[in-house]
Amino acid sequence: MMIDFRTHPDVYRHWKLRVDGRVAYLNMAVDPKGGIDSGYELKLNSYDLGVDIELADAVQRLRFEHPEVGAVVIGSSLDRMFCAGANIGMLAAAAHPLKVNFCKFTNETRSAIEDATNKSGQRYVAALRGSAAGGGYELALATDHIMLIDDRNAAVSLPEVSLLGVLPGTGGLTRLTDKRHVRRDRADAFSTLEEGIKGDKALEWRLVDELVPAPSFDETVASRAQELAAKTDRPADAQGVVLTPLDRQIEEDVVRYSLVDVGIDRAERIASITVRGPGDSPPVHGDEAVACGAEFWPLRLARELEDAILHLRVNELEIGTILLRSEGDLGLVLAYDTFLLSQRDHWFIREVLLYWGRLLRRVDLTSRTLIALIEPENCFAGFIAELTLAADRSYMLIGERPQGGGIANLAFTDLNRLGFPMSNGLTRLETRFWGDPGGLSTAQGVIGEKLDAEAALAAGLVTDAMDDLDWNDELRIIIEERSAFSPDALTAMEANLRFPGPETMETKIFGRLTAWQNWVFQRPSASGEAGALRRYGTGIRPEYDPRRV
Amino acid sequence: MMIDFRTHPDVYRHWKLRVDGRVAYLNMAVDPKGGIDSGYELKLNSYDLGVDIELADAVQRLRFEHPEVGAVVIGSSLDRMFCAGANIGMLAAAAHPLKVNFCKFTNETRSAIEDATNKSGQRYVAALRGSAAGGGYELALATDHIMLIDDRNAAVSLPEVSLLGVLPGTGGLTRLTDKRHVRRDRADAFSTLEEGIKGDKALEWRLVDELVPAPSFDETVASRAQELAAKTDRPADAQGVVLTPLDRQIEEDVVRYSLVDVGIDRAERIASITVRGPGDSPPVHGDEAVACGAEFWPLRLARELEDAILHLRVNELEIGTILLRSEGDLGLVLAYDTFLLSQRDHWFIREVLLYWGRLLRRVDLTSRTLIALIEPENCFAGFIAELTLAADRSYMLIGERPQGGGIANLAFTDLNRLGFPMSNGLTRLETRFWGDPGGLSTAQGVIGEKLDAEAALAAGLVTDAMDDLDWNDELRIIIEERSAFSPDALTAMEANLRFPGPETMETKIFGRLTAWQNWVFQRPSASGEAGALRRYGTGIRPEYDPRRV
Repeated sequence: MMIDFRTHPDVYRHWKLRVDGRVAYLNMAVDPKGGIDSGYELKLNSYDLGVDIELADAVQRLRFEHPEVGAVVIGSSLDRMFCAGANIGMLAAAAHPLKVNFCKFTNETRSAIEDATNKSGQRYVAALRGSAAGGGYELALATDHIMLIDDRNAAVSLPEVSLLGVLPGTGGLTRLTDKRHVRRDRADAFSTLEEGIKGDKALEWRLVDELVPAPSFDETVASRAQELAAKTDRPADAQGVVLTPLDRQIEEDVVRYSLVDVGIDRAERIASITVRGPGDSPPVHGDEAVACGAEFWPLRLARELEDAILHLRVNELEIGTILLRSEGDLGLVLAYDTFLLSQRDHWFIREVLLYWGRLLRRVDLTSRTLIALIEPENCFAGFIAELTLAADRSYMLIGERPQGGGIANLAFTDLNRLGFPMSNGLTRLETRFWGDPGGLSTAQGVIGEKLDAEAALAAGLVTDAMDDLDWNDELRIIIEERSAFSPDALTAMEANLRFPGPETMETKIFGRLTAWQNWVFQRPSASGEAGALRRYGTGIRPEYDPRRV
Repeated sequence: MMIDFRTHPDVYRHWKLRVDGRVAYLNMAVDPKGGIDSGYELKLNSYDLGVDIELADAVQRLRFEHPEVGAVVIGSSLDRMFCAGANIGMLAAAAHPLKVNFCKFTNETRSAIEDATNKSGQRYVAALRGSAAGGGYELALATDHIMLIDDRNAAVSLPEVSLLGVLPGTGGLTRLTDKRHVRRDRADAFSTLEEGIKGDKALEWRLVDELVPAPSFDETVASRAQELAAKTDRPADAQGVVLTPLDRQIEEDVVRYSLVDVGIDRAERIASITVRGPGDSPPVHGDEAVACGAEFWPLRLARELEDAILHLRVNELEIGTILLRSEGDLGLVLAYDTFLLSQRDHWFIREVLLYWGRLLRRVDLTSRTLIALIEPENCFAGFIAELTLAADRSYMLIGERPQGGGIANLAFTDLNRLGFPMSNGLTRLETRFWGDPGGLSTAQGVIGEKLDAEAALAAGLVTDAMDDLDWNDELRIIIEERSAFSPDALTAMEANLRFPGPETMETKIFGRLTAWQNWVFQRPSASGEAGALRRYGTGIRPEYDPRRV
């Protein structure tokens, strides 16, 4: 089964999107028969990856296609259940890598919701006209304002520990304490209470923001959403940019887009991604970029690259190393980079930059070894060069190829200095030189320069530089060596080394919480034959390894 | 096999401790036949839990018994190998809970080394007169100054990923980037280089602090240690406090010390720890406390409680819940608390307080549900009351027992406000009210008061309060419910909820890095029949699950 991340509101099976002036309504109406795989039914608005792919698409489109929208209400088409969380049958049946990929993607979608709220003036409201359980409540936790119907029945709950022997791993535990500031002993009590908490106590414990009497629920939600929308800095009357369908051709070992090529070598377990620079100069004003629509080069490239990364993540599990290359006119990329920086207050350019930020964080969180190769005719400059900083290693060619054709250059700009915080809150330059202010200052000192390999190496901006004589052999050794290591050990090592320095709620969710969840998912008490995920719904009690680890 | 954490330099099998004025020399000389379990040989200064128990004992004794020591040199009695790291045979044979416990304890020992350096004026030097591999290099990373012999052979290395399919999980990855500020791509290259790095490159990459020519190695180490020792604020001529042997009786379901009792109910999977208050008033000056020696109540209690916790951790794996109780005169505890605060600049009192800090952090990191019970005649006050804040939940009795005997009181002091940072850098009060300045201020407003149950509840300082009518039934339900949950899910949940807010190198090591390592340990590629740990040394290549997770 190949999983496709491309979708469109016209073909959603699980969500209804309606825009009403400044407010968008995104209603969950999961089709029980619409699971991405067979063998389970998506009852009671429970979800699988397919449901979340549509949600992520909606969140993304609202940013670009609806500049006027200042608030988004996530609701449900069911009366007594907002959302029952991740589907247990799906979790029980899924292989470990798929469970992990499912959690990672859903976590990224929830981070995207917070990104919209915090950076793009699109505030999210969760309208719980019924209970929100597990992943359903975790989805609500990603919004800015949780409204719960006050009908003596509707509760919020995290029944994962008590019912399923796993964690609320889509950020639930972290957001309870770090976002909503629920006292840790209350968070403990709540997270072990199968039936959850409702009414005044839910409010007192800060589990929800507002209790709404049933008769006035929809009306109160609408007026609250209007109030929040009124605070937005998004333009009321701008033309949106429609995210037209992505062109993609998949062949046996190639995935081709208009600006991105992916070559796949399954024997060596390597994928090679090449991104291409623009064909012409940038526009002069943000409105002209809007006129380019989804063809605007930085947007088109981001969409294609994101799709390629997601495709490799879930459909090419055995690919261990991704080589990142670029080709194109470095000068034109710099011109685009300058344009983006100069127009960053324009709503559309802001969206493009924030999208690149999310895409780069997806790259950071991709559990494959990333190696950037900087060769002649590359176009790693400015925001495209950020990919070389996201990589685990970067190698640059010294001098020309024997056939000539110029040398490789690399250029960083103010966008690298300002534009793209990682999930640890630092830029990739700051992360690279964490605790080394001298190194950071040297690197920042060459911002704006076209660096050849020796200069980039001297500034600490590439891992190593080699001439043509050594290039192929050395790279082959590095890649072969990497392929010989334990894929698990590499995943865990990279997850640690990529995030030096401070932590944020986001790194805690993707680092600490996710690692614990992955561990739990791997344990017999959760995933074994007699584990809680397998036994759920059978009426037979799960068997637990009683030893505390 | 019962593991005993009590030891003494006279019976060390693996370390030689020598004190020379202001400098102590702690030489690793592992007895290959001295493994704590059978089935493996501790070759080349490789270590198991037994080796680390002795190291932890030495680190602890140097604090109390040698106030004059300002620098500690960790060296090796072998010529070409400082330390080969954790013993692979031991890791391959150990059950998962033992592997995890081994890593946790060794991590705590390394944190204790940094605690001595940062807070107690005892700076550690690693004298690498040969190679330091894996856990051997991680031990060096815990010191303040790493000196490597410059003999063309000696290297530092982290071969875990390349050789063993696991992580350098004793803080190695985190300390590379967050303590030594090694650039992340270099950390990646180093952590996948089986043979490690030596000489000038090790220095340039900040993997070591000093290269020392072989002929002058010992001399240079000694003079560097003298220089560091000269900066200490520890007294040159004070009398040390000898840590006399702990009295402990172990019966079938009771562990008894002089001030601590542990009752064990294996059927219910509960342990009940009771700590006892002092029998008399505190001394007036720190020197009088020194005269009490190891009998000084706060020290004696800490040693007994620490031993009890460690014993439960490794010898009672199936105990899932620990009840924390106290009994004694609350007024006398407050008197001791005031004394400790007033004399905190005295070297011995400083040590006692720092020891309580380490002990409390061990409690935070103990993967069992912790429930504090605050009943009449308890003595939870000041630093002892910190245990109620470390617990996952705390319950307090309202009113008297039917037979009379007074009500329960609880009292917090300035020591709770100032004294005991958790590994996240916050006090337990700040952690409890993370993001809730109003709640913190209310709680701090009652510092110094004797609180009854209603007052403690109103100030948010206990989870709940119940009267005698409900007490037994409600507690039974809470405890039985807990025992029915997946032990793994509880471990993972508690590891997340106990550390809201900011992160430090220490929480990253115990949270993120450890969780990833536990996951890797659980995976077939590491621990399966054909995994790297099992295949190590057989000449047969391990088989890895090629899917990237």
